Amino acid sequence: MSKGTVVLAYSGGLDTSCILVWLKEQGYDVIAFLANIGQDEDFDSARKKAENLGAKKVFIEDLRSEFVEHFILPAVQANAVYEDRYLLGTALARPCIARRLVQIAQKEQAEFISHGATGKGNDQIRFELTSYALYSDVKVIAPWRIPEFYNRFKGRKDLMEYAQCSAPTDLYLMTKNPDEAPNVPDVLEIEFKNGVPIKVTNVKAGSSKDKPLEMFMYLNEIGGKHGVGRIDIVENRFIGMKSRGIYETPGGTILLQAHLDIETFTMDKEVRRIKQGLGIKFSELVYNGFWYSPECDFLLHCINKSQENVEGKVQLSVYKGQVYILGRESPKSLYNEDLVSMDKQGDYDPCDASGFIRVNAVRYVRIKSQTSKTT
Amino acid sequence: MSKGTVVLAYSGGLDTSCILVWLKEQGYDVIAFLANIGQDEDFDSARKKAENLGAKKVFIEDLRSEFVEHFILPAVQANAVYEDRYLLGTALARPCIARRLVQIAQKEQAEFISHGATGKGNDQIRFELTSYALYSDVKVIAPWRIPEFYNRFKGRKDLMEYAQCSAPTDLYLMTKNPDEAPNVPDVLEIEFKNGVPIKVTNVKAGSSKDKPLEMFMYLNEIGGKHGVGRIDIVENRFIGMKSRGIYETPGGTILLQAHLDIETFTMDKEVRRIKQGLGIKFSELVYNGFWYSPECDFLLHCINKSQENVEGKVQLSVYKGQVYILGRESPKSLYNEDLVSMDKQGDYDPCDASGFIRVNAVRYVRIKSQTSKTT
Amino acid sequence: MSKGTVVLAYSGGLDTSCILVWLKEQGYDVIAFLANIGQDEDFDSARKKAENLGAKKVFIEDLRSEFVEHFILPAVQANAVYEDRYLLGTALARPCIARRLVQIAQKEQAEFISHGATGKGNDQIRFELTSYALYSDVKVIAPWRIPEFYNRFKGRKDLMEYAQCSAPTDLYLMTKNPDEAPNVPDVLEIEFKNGVPIKVTNVKAGSSKDKPLEMFMYLNEIGGKHGVGRIDIVENRFIGMKSRGIYETPGGTILLQAHLDIETFTMDKEVRRIKQGLGIKFSELVYNGFWYSPECDFLLHCINKSQENVEGKVQLSVYKGQVYILGRESPKSLYNEDLVSMDKQGDYDPCDASGFIRVNAVRYVRIKSQTSKTT
Amino acid sequence: MSKGTVVLAYSGGLDTSCILVWLKEQGYDVIAFLANIGQDEDFDSARKKAENLGAKKVFIEDLRSEFVEHFILPAVQANAVYEDRYLLGTALARPCIARRLVQIAQKEQAEFISHGATGKGNDQIRFELTSYALYSDVKVIAPWRIPEFYNRFKGRKDLMEYAQCSAPTDLYLMTKNPDEAPNVPDVLEIEFKNGVPIKVTNVKAGSSKDKPLEMFMYLNEIGGKHGVGRIDIVENRFIGMKSRGIYETPGGTILLQAHLDIETFTMDKEVRRIKQGLGIKFSELVYNGFWYSPECDFLLHCINKSQENVEGKVQLSVYKGQVYILGRESPKSLYNEDLVSMDKQGDYDPCDASGFIRVNAVRYVRIKSQTSKTT
Repeated sequence: MSKGTVVLAYSGGLDTSCILVWLKEQGYDVIAFLANIGQDEDFDSARKKAENLGAKKVFIEDLRSEFVEHFILPAVQANAVYEDRYLLGTALARPCIARRLVQIAQKEQAEFISHGATGKGNDQIRFELTSYALYSDVKVIAPWRIPEFYNRFKGRKDLMEYAQCSAPTDLYLMTKNPDEAPNVPDVLEIEFKNGVPIKVTNVKAGSSKDKPLEMFMYLNEIGGKHGVGRIDIVENRFIGMKSRGIYETPGGTILLQAHLDIETFTMDKEVRRIKQGLGIKFSELVYNGFWYSPECDFLLHCINKSQENVEGKVQLSVYKGQVYILGRESPKSLYNEDLVSMDKQGDYDPCDASGFIRVNAVRYVRIKSQTSKTT
Repeated sequence: MSKGTVVLAYSGGLDTSCILVWLKEQGYDVIAFLANIGQDEDFDSARKKAENLGAKKVFIEDLRSEFVEHFILPAVQANAVYEDRYLLGTALARPCIARRLVQIAQKEQAEFISHGATGKGNDQIRFELTSYALYSDVKVIAPWRIPEFYNRFKGRKDLMEYAQCSAPTDLYLMTKNPDEAPNVPDVLEIEFKNGVPIKVTNVKAGSSKDKPLEMFMYLNEIGGKHGVGRIDIVENRFIGMKSRGIYETPGGTILLQAHLDIETFTMDKEVRRIKQGLGIKFSELVYNGFWYSPECDFLLHCINKSQENVEGKVQLSVYKGQVYILGRESPKSLYNEDLVSMDKQGDYDPCDASGFIRVNAVRYVRIKSQTSKTT
Repeated sequence: MSKGTVVLAYSGGLDTSCILVWLKEQGYDVIAFLANIGQDEDFDSARKKAENLGAKKVFIEDLRSEFVEHFILPAVQANAVYEDRYLLGTALARPCIARRLVQIAQKEQAEFISHGATGKGNDQIRFELTSYALYSDVKVIAPWRIPEFYNRFKGRKDLMEYAQCSAPTDLYLMTKNPDEAPNVPDVLEIEFKNGVPIKVTNVKAGSSKDKPLEMFMYLNEIGGKHGVGRIDIVENRFIGMKSRGIYETPGGTILLQAHLDIETFTMDKEVRRIKQGLGIKFSELVYNGFWYSPECDFLLHCINKSQENVEGKVQLSVYKGQVYILGRESPKSLYNEDLVSMDKQGDYDPCDASGFIRVNAVRYVRIKSQTSKTT
Repeated sequence: MSKGTVVLAYSGGLDTSCILVWLKEQGYDVIAFLANIGQDEDFDSARKKAENLGAKKVFIEDLRSEFVEHFILPAVQANAVYEDRYLLGTALARPCIARRLVQIAQKEQAEFISHGATGKGNDQIRFELTSYALYSDVKVIAPWRIPEFYNRFKGRKDLMEYAQCSAPTDLYLMTKNPDEAPNVPDVLEIEFKNGVPIKVTNVKAGSSKDKPLEMFMYLNEIGGKHGVGRIDIVENRFIGMKSRGIYETPGGTILLQAHLDIETFTMDKEVRRIKQGLGIKFSELVYNGFWYSPECDFLLHCINKSQENVEGKVQLSVYKGQVYILGRESPKSLYNEDLVSMDKQGDYDPCDASGFIRVNAVRYVRIKSQTSKTT
């Protein structure tokens, strides 16, 4: 008799294949769910594999548009970067996948979900916090935290690890090595509205994209071709360990640079300062797996509000691992050429600056000679 | 054969007495540790009780001075308040007790510590984070998180709870009900140096105290007599539950008001603003049990640095549940009567304010008619 | 020939009467504008005075409802407090008055506005930043910053100052001295929706108010009767001076305490933490005169969003200068009695706390013996 | 008869030469001060020029070491970046120059200082706030804010501007265009202690530098050769205007990347988070000219404290405008390979993560069916 139904976040790889089989051994009916979020994968053969291993049903779903529109674009608005460097690619994908996972579980009346994330990482947290947020009674089976499982499969893990890491040059899948990148830059124009890209144009080629997924794929392609967005960092996991991470985020890096530029061009200085703090907080929450939390909802709302005037076009060139901003224009710009010009005063009276500076220095004057008293 | 030695944070009450017996039943040698942090307790009878229940050793130690000097005074410097209202009394006591607990465990070569905090509260976290920080290999036995224990004693718990809470008017131990407080205020002068009180004088009586513990006890007495520092709040526990808390912090409330006053009088405005943020962060850490964390160390250092010029005397009256600031004086004051006077200009030229204001309004001018572009 | 028309923020007092006359002497047509924001004033006699002094027109307008609804209530949502103590009464009134001032100036085609705020204070900034924000071409005449004016009237100023301050016990206009307050508390119930009060009930009397202005006036009356909300502080002005301020905010103090309570009861912990930071920033902006700035707009929007579930009733007693929270209830409460109870586990497994605590301590473990390297 | 002595911050260029002459015309004795902070300048000919124009004395001083040690290195510790992009080169130089300027003024008993910064920029503020902080009675003559001066010289300004900007490719003085940079990277190892570099080694060449100024010049050279650190941005000036800035900071960019890396490797996660906020605040202060303010002192102290364990070596390659981190090692690392390894559990029990996650989700559970009440 079945212990119940588990929906497993299936990757098609050895790890989650082992888990699928083990879950069946334990007496569960297993539904495999494989999300397409843009990874390089043979989905048909993954489906067959899951079926052959005994999955009762297999769901393979293309979440790419939803991933770009509902997760990546808000992160672009936020200039989301964790610990000054990490652009949060995986961290954004996890709640997208987990949301669908629990939707399937609810539809299929499964009490359980399972995943292949390890017991020391961030992904287990991201999967499970999303699951608890959206399906509060769900029960989670995390085999890499269950001694019977991990003691048995540790050996295989060693093997897999070894196999995966033997060739560090193969670590990067999307980006070329910058020294193999073309000697001629690509020049792009990215148009934003409400802080999100609405059109990407290759200036020389004259071609353009205007659907979120297409734009993002195109930026990944161009960024990848020029070796943009590779980092090798040590980061602080939510559970308090430091770990090394090697990431590539070609399209995200281009979008971050372009968005930072148009945002500073069009957003009031003090709003920007407050929003910068909210963006840092948002990035920590996303990293830690709190996408579906009340505070993340609140920040998403506030950040989106801040983007109302973030509109215009940024021209940039992509070359040898770098993104160079060439210029920007906007109907909502707060940049006032006349005001800033050294030769026109506009409405601005330079004499005012004297008072401004002196008042800013008022605090500096200490009284030295006397005890002060107020009663 | 013994399973090893446990040092138990013993309160003398029914709860930890049950735990003592249960730990012995489980095969441990038990050392009872009872800290005197100022609570109303018959320590001799508690010692006998522990011995009768089978404690191998009983340590009763007076931590009051250390509690005031190393925990309360830094909190005064920080204006530590959790969620705008709670003055963190218990939260500050826990790391003080737990530090001594693990020192005893190390001295007595005990592998284990135990405590009577429940599995839903903050105190378990405060005890254990301190213990792990100072004795990283320690093993914690938390009976209220162990099903065999809590399923067995739940009934008794109900009983105790009932007994303890039947008379809510008795909830307050240190403070009089304000409507029973004297009709004549006490007027105090509190002298600060480096942001901590160094002398408390009762202005009418002419008496004074200058040792930390004595000052603090005296402020508790005066505050208690006038019904100062009672609150009935809902707070957010670290583990994410909301709970109701009823607290009394008479001395702490007087110190907070006095310190806030002398601090604003002597500290630069912008330093104050930064320090205010650090104090809020510090309060959250203390509440959550992170006293012995790297970040709390860092904040303690920074906050202490900010207090270098927080020096002077504050006069205040304590009356019917309230603290009224009457005045303050300081040799380090940044208050400059001449500068602020409406009839003397001092070094200040009022005309400068025009420029100051106009420059602050520069941002408000939007260009309306044109698209702006920089390339 | 007239130099043009000035709209003067007229108070009816000696100060702005002098200014009115002086402006006429300088060749301006003067329109006097006197706002009723709840102060104790004989408006008819003020009108006659202004007319007698030569005002071309006199506008006297009741801004009380607008002041309460558009300025005070958002400050209640924000828990707005400057430097931990000042409830910003005057700071909130200034943009309300200045907004109407420039509306009149625009309607009357006046190029100029004028006010009686001194050159060292905050009010000049609050008036003028609002004016520049809403009427960007307006010209400001601030006589207390103009040497010909202030050198001539300095003597009078001395006199006025002296007259006003001779009797410090008269400083408080709205609040009784707590020791003359009644010996019997008033018990109120305040109902909130969206973080603003919608009904105030006197529990014993059974009477209630539900219009913003009426509620606020009633809370001022009750608070005043019990001596609530008096403070004597030193504060940091925007221009960098410290100044002493003596304030009374009876109604505001009651609302702050009640709102803090219902907010913590109904708002998610982490949203609360972010919102607390936004509220502090908002308070600084309001104090400094930036009500009509892009960043204050942004914060008002965000803070309002945070209040969606801040709903319910708070019971409190007002007695001898204090506000005591007695209890609260809410249909949107996040307080879960079952969850928090020591005797019911609900969905919460206390064993989970062990893992929670241990994972929080992972960071504490340093490796001691070796140099670490990642390449 | 002389109006007194002015010390002029002299650049050797047309602008400050005009000012020198104009100040003499106005009746001042002029002392010219020209600081060497590493710019490309013929100091001898500048001295002659100033003498020929009538300077009473000329001081030319090499402030390069002091600039690197006392200004740049603290900025490295802070990861100082303004508005996410600008590395604050000029902003750091101004207080260094102004400090020496007022020291000379005090030594030479000059009442006045003067500079050639415009009335719309940041540099006037940076110069003057430093001057007022260190020499509170100093009088500032800022000709570009004096109508008689700027109306007369506006035409020349136009000319100069035109001349200077005709060839935008010449804008960059220190950095090569990335597409003209070498095809072979330089590989560097930078050793840090207390968060500042103490040794820079060119790994292939085997050569190294260990004096602050030499290290910094060498990093500028290497970075410049590979086109590192060019940005074209719009930034928000302190006075509220947006302006376009084109900057090159080759050495600073390398140091920022290397420091970020070793800092994250060696600093506790939560300390890092607090310090990140302090660094952002510090960057704003530096940008705005508040280097010699109480709050900047305070932040410098706190940030320096945070760097106690920021120690170790970072390997990086510099290539085609980019800095790539290759690896890092440290005796103070908090990175624990065993702890993080997927195949060793170390002291970490993966099961703890289940409790950790579930407790983090406690907040998500709302009670749905009932009104909650605490009284």
